Amino acid sequence: MRSVHFTSEETSNGVIAREFTVGEVPGMLWSPESGSGRAPLVLLGHGGGQDSRSPGMAGRAALLVGDGGFHVAAIDAPGHGGRPRTADDEREIAALRRAMAAGEPVGPIVVSFNAGIARRAVPEWRAVLDALQELPEIGAEGPVGYYGVSMGTAIGLPLTAAEPRITAAVLGLFCYDEALAEAAGRITVPVEFALQWDDEIIPRESGLALFDALASKEKTLHANAGGHHEVPRFEADSAVRFFARHLRG
Amino acid sequence: MRSVHFTSEETSNGVIAREFTVGEVPGMLWSPESGSGRAPLVLLGHGGGQDSRSPGMAGRAALLVGDGGFHVAAIDAPGHGGRPRTADDEREIAALRRAMAAGEPVGPIVVSFNAGIARRAVPEWRAVLDALQELPEIGAEGPVGYYGVSMGTAIGLPLTAAEPRITAAVLGLFCYDEALAEAAGRITVPVEFALQWDDEIIPRESGLALFDALASKEKTLHANAGGHHEVPRFEADSAVRFFARHLRG
Repeated sequence: MRSVHFTSEETSNGVIAREFTVGEVPGMLWSPESGSGRAPLVLLGHGGGQDSRSPGMAGRAALLVGDGGFHVAAIDAPGHGGRPRTADDEREIAALRRAMAAGEPVGPIVVSFNAGIARRAVPEWRAVLDALQELPEIGAEGPVGYYGVSMGTAIGLPLTAAEPRITAAVLGLFCYDEALAEAAGRITVPVEFALQWDDEIIPRESGLALFDALASKEKTLHANAGGHHEVPRFEADSAVRFFARHLRG
Repeated sequence: MRSVHFTSEETSNGVIAREFTVGEVPGMLWSPESGSGRAPLVLLGHGGGQDSRSPGMAGRAALLVGDGGFHVAAIDAPGHGGRPRTADDEREIAALRRAMAAGEPVGPIVVSFNAGIARRAVPEWRAVLDALQELPEIGAEGPVGYYGVSMGTAIGLPLTAAEPRITAAVLGLFCYDEALAEAAGRITVPVEFALQWDDEIIPRESGLALFDALASKEKTLHANAGGHHEVPRFEADSAVRFFARHLRG
């Protein structure tokens, strides 16, 4: 098993932010400065084109640490944040750019591209979780949540389905597709699922069908008016409360 | 204009609960015990078969007063809480009971019955609001919210559409119908809308279509797994936060 290797540490506003690597996978770990023993861990998945050091990630981490008292970990997905891309990645990204420039629907390309990323990301997340649980402030017994929308959900659905340590997940902003629906059908932990009612990338019916496919007895859809990138700020607060309900006995 | 006539007063857990009448309409006003000047007002609409003194109403009022610091008012809808029923009311209630006993869909009967109630309830609510705004602790300038699901939405949609003093509303758990959709299309204030994903009374597509009909630029759907009467407790907390965002400058 590979261990967490910390490469930097910075503290601001009560949050300790540490860059780390686990093997060749780089990531970030955000923790409360004044920790009182162990705290639950939330895994934070980034969107397509972003990485673990994107400002939106730090913003969500600050809320989860500051308001929730959680540890929060993010890793760069394959092909993201300077990590090497495969020839397939390059081909799909080129197809995505062509479709966007031509004003064509990008959903099918995003689904295929992200499925390839997720196949590599899921075992990486599991190895990183193994390593993080070796840290004394996290530990192997603590509850674990997963929070990621858009590409973070393309990875989060198969990850949550495969990983029994994840006991609550905030997901959303992604299309229905058979493989993802199959993974959703194996998820039984509580889920909060975001959908944008006027999403220009994810057709409404497709997002609703993916929510419907979740087997969880406790699941909540939060659908807001607006486009793919207009999720209201209060949804991040809602995610903190969701994890507080489910990761704190 | 008729004034508020208080008929009882009780204080518990920091909440003053007063029964009142405005003309022949009976209601309840819940207020913070330690009021620091004026506070926004939330109008609370009850469901079919309930009234302003039902325990669920007192529960929501306690949250809105305790956590939000609001004044909260409820009135008994026509034909509810001991108020006289018309011959039409009696006919519709008998039809509703027959359909329930026979296991037939009750949606169309509920829509028609509640539309009749709403036609009488909307002017009553507006007169009660006039009277409540004469009270020094409420005042005519303060922001007003409306919170009611199920029959509370059958009344709340036309009320919110007609009443410019209402600047935010929590609604939901009701069917699409043309008259209600027309009212929804005139609503532009922020709305939080509840839907139960497995509602045995409101077909899912019908509830989604009613949410879609709202003209509000800021609207959020909260859809939870479970039946009509299984709205999770945390949705009441969410409503308090929604009103705190919108009724407090």
